[in-house]
Amino acid sequence: MNYDNLSLLTDLYEITMMQGYFKTGSTERVIFDLFYRKNPCDGGYAVCCGLEQAIDYIRNLHFSDEDIDYLKSTGFFQDDFLDYLRGFKFTGSIYAIPEGTIIFPREPLVKVDAPIIEAQLVEAALLNIINHQSLIATKAARVVHEAGPGVMEFGLRRAQGPDAGIYGARAAVIAGCNGTSNVLAGKMFGIPVKGTHAHSWIMSFPSELQAFREYAKLYPDNCLLLVDTYNALEGVEHAITVFKEMRAAGIHTRLYGIRLDSGDLAYLTKKARRMLDEAGFEDAVISASSDLDEYLINSLMNQGARITSWGVGTNLITSKDWSSFGGVYKLACIYDKDGREIPKIKVSENLEKVTNPGNKKILRLYDKETGKIRGDLLALVDEQFGPDKDLVLFDPNATWKRTTLKGGSYRIRELLVPVFLNGECVYSSPSVMEIRDYCAKEKETLWEECQRLVNPQETYVDLSQKLWDLKNDLLNKVHMHSDSE
Amino acid sequence: MNYDNLSLLTDLYEITMMQGYFKTGSTERVIFDLFYRKNPCDGGYAVCCGLEQAIDYIRNLHFSDEDIDYLKSTGFFQDDFLDYLRGFKFTGSIYAIPEGTIIFPREPLVKVDAPIIEAQLVEAALLNIINHQSLIATKAARVVHEAGPGVMEFGLRRAQGPDAGIYGARAAVIAGCNGTSNVLAGKMFGIPVKGTHAHSWIMSFPSELQAFREYAKLYPDNCLLLVDTYNALEGVEHAITVFKEMRAAGIHTRLYGIRLDSGDLAYLTKKARRMLDEAGFEDAVISASSDLDEYLINSLMNQGARITSWGVGTNLITSKDWSSFGGVYKLACIYDKDGREIPKIKVSENLEKVTNPGNKKILRLYDKETGKIRGDLLALVDEQFGPDKDLVLFDPNATWKRTTLKGGSYRIRELLVPVFLNGECVYSSPSVMEIRDYCAKEKETLWEECQRLVNPQETYVDLSQKLWDLKNDLLNKVHMHSDSE
Repeated sequence: MNYDNLSLLTDLYEITMMQGYFKTGSTERVIFDLFYRKNPCDGGYAVCCGLEQAIDYIRNLHFSDEDIDYLKSTGFFQDDFLDYLRGFKFTGSIYAIPEGTIIFPREPLVKVDAPIIEAQLVEAALLNIINHQSLIATKAARVVHEAGPGVMEFGLRRAQGPDAGIYGARAAVIAGCNGTSNVLAGKMFGIPVKGTHAHSWIMSFPSELQAFREYAKLYPDNCLLLVDTYNALEGVEHAITVFKEMRAAGIHTRLYGIRLDSGDLAYLTKKARRMLDEAGFEDAVISASSDLDEYLINSLMNQGARITSWGVGTNLITSKDWSSFGGVYKLACIYDKDGREIPKIKVSENLEKVTNPGNKKILRLYDKETGKIRGDLLALVDEQFGPDKDLVLFDPNATWKRTTLKGGSYRIRELLVPVFLNGECVYSSPSVMEIRDYCAKEKETLWEECQRLVNPQETYVDLSQKLWDLKNDLLNKVHMHSDSE
Repeated sequence: MNYDNLSLLTDLYEITMMQGYFKTGSTERVIFDLFYRKNPCDGGYAVCCGLEQAIDYIRNLHFSDEDIDYLKSTGFFQDDFLDYLRGFKFTGSIYAIPEGTIIFPREPLVKVDAPIIEAQLVEAALLNIINHQSLIATKAARVVHEAGPGVMEFGLRRAQGPDAGIYGARAAVIAGCNGTSNVLAGKMFGIPVKGTHAHSWIMSFPSELQAFREYAKLYPDNCLLLVDTYNALEGVEHAITVFKEMRAAGIHTRLYGIRLDSGDLAYLTKKARRMLDEAGFEDAVISASSDLDEYLINSLMNQGARITSWGVGTNLITSKDWSSFGGVYKLACIYDKDGREIPKIKVSENLEKVTNPGNKKILRLYDKETGKIRGDLLALVDEQFGPDKDLVLFDPNATWKRTTLKGGSYRIRELLVPVFLNGECVYSSPSVMEIRDYCAKEKETLWEECQRLVNPQETYVDLSQKLWDLKNDLLNKVHMHSDSE
């Protein structure tokens, strides 16, 4: 997708509401929070991703004549509003958590502070972009946690459209994959591209051995031979034949080995490892793909599979068992004419769905000794906390669950950084490989217990006393919004 | 995604193989089949979609100087090959099943007949495009089958990136959704866009009633009021108040009613229907959304939910329970220097994964009386079948399962149509709404038993005797490919 022209990438109701605000003269500034409610795959964390594309989208927001003509043709919009759209640009402020950061449910990943008519428009595209990339980054982090550093993203052909392949590859590399098969993603983001050959290469030659020889001649320095076109273990023998011929010819290869794309990967890789080692190819790589995800990788590792390099496709690029990040965008605050904040809350019968009102910040609390995350604290922006004082945290849903962080034992970091201030972009995105380095450090701040695949330890996101009091006040007043005229 | 510049949207190994074919002088023509193996969601059929974008991709295939510079920078490619890429264009032929057609496993949806170096390049992008849109079209057909005609596609914010939202909306409308919330998709494809307002509209006013009144004033002709911001049934009462005020003021509204986005939709819609009817608003629409998919819709219908219009989001746009269509692209045939076909087969321990060799066509056999599909027949292109003769079909995996179609009782249709011939595009895509009409007729050719959500009747895709013999011959010879040098 070309991020220059996504202004109509929105739900129709955003624009009908905009016209409503325009016609009713609603010009007040508001705050919307973009947050999610549940970690993907019932995991213990998520990885924030997609901010760079979200910024591109906001910077380029404008309605072309063609866009205006189209909107007019729908019959929903009046000329004065369409004239307003002609001159539209985003004039608000946006705060966001940097890409690659470890995040937890109910934290505002993006906070939009803008006139309501502008803040409403950007809902759908911001959600689309952040939801997608954060989902794939989180899935990739889980896969890499199980497999170790040798994971390649291989999912382009099964991704949900070109963007899903391209930006999915971006997110996967940010979260720890060491490369992608996707050449366009490689070009766009400066990330490593990898790959060797397919079954069709083998099938296009009269024999497997001949196909291997031709490949080795062409790519002596990157010679991973796919061995399972006909029979995997015979394929390994043929690969060994070719490696011996290369050795005999004095060819020193930087990277060589075999790739398996089917069959039982535990059985076959153990067997293949033995065959390669016995032939003196202890440094030959064994690369495996075939319906891999974090659970199967974990199980294969437990069974002693000898895999040095993993190609993960469909299950990563579509996040097969958890297809949507589920981020939402909710009104948190309206400013009155004097600039005073009127906090807003969205209630629900489901406690999890009740929003946190007001203009908030997120404080991450690190254990000073280990550098690990002790918990996060949602507070109102004007609250002050110092790391020298004792800090009492409590679970917002079970307030009797309390813990005290001793003054001096913890470090505080504010997660939200300014991205736009009054319409001006004030943030410069790092390169993808820089974000990847940052994300690797971020993952080190997670306790191992939070990264378990099944039933991980929860990291608490608590509310400050002041925010909790505000939320309760508003909850008690909610019926008035509904009853009163 | 801009389909003008997707030439690098491919896996690296396609290009390393291309260089391999280039360097070994492999110029032979080949046939690749793009097919899938299993109906999404364990259903009884799929809907083919994405051909128009696949055509755009092929038409625009070329490598820009920037693309060449990037490929050079990877270090994998040599100058003579890069020079060849500079002049690259697709010169082959492509046959495909038209979009909106009902399809079954193992049928070539796209057949590429081209020099191997060209046919290899296009694998990843063709799969990406066809896999994505066919997945969403199939999911949408399932949802519409349960809900009836009033389904709107609402998933943009949860789609896996902008393209997934845009082309997912396209696919959903082709398969029977009556519109989308996605404005850009509406503009690009001329499909209906729908939507009213969100909770934030309500929350931006001092009371729900005031928010409803303002909305009704602005959009009297399209006045669906979202009633569940605070309390759903109180919201219905407030909506009725506003509808009465409109009636009293003599305002005749074309489309009005309520929308529910939470709570128990069976209970609430039955109750809301009674309230609306008692107030004399029998023609008020009740629109519902909230984590809907075909299974929940089926269950709500069985419980007598009174829903006239369905907004389906996440579960449709991501095909939540079946995230990938699983299409593959396999070599079926190589032409020798004299233009003779050498059929190719890919074996696998898994019987389902053994490919069908040769240059094939797909014959759809309709019952003359009912117009329903009796079965499909995969045959070699030079085979002739006449609808006047008795036709014996047999299951390729259980050849004793036989059925005879009496001559004169069936009609034959060839599914594959030419799309490119020797590099020239010879196919003109219908509009999305035309494809939608065609797809509606296609769905009528399916037996109801094939559309059951659980354990549907399978439609047989049988092999002609000649194709079956060829396949068996090749299977018996397979070890030779592997053993021989």
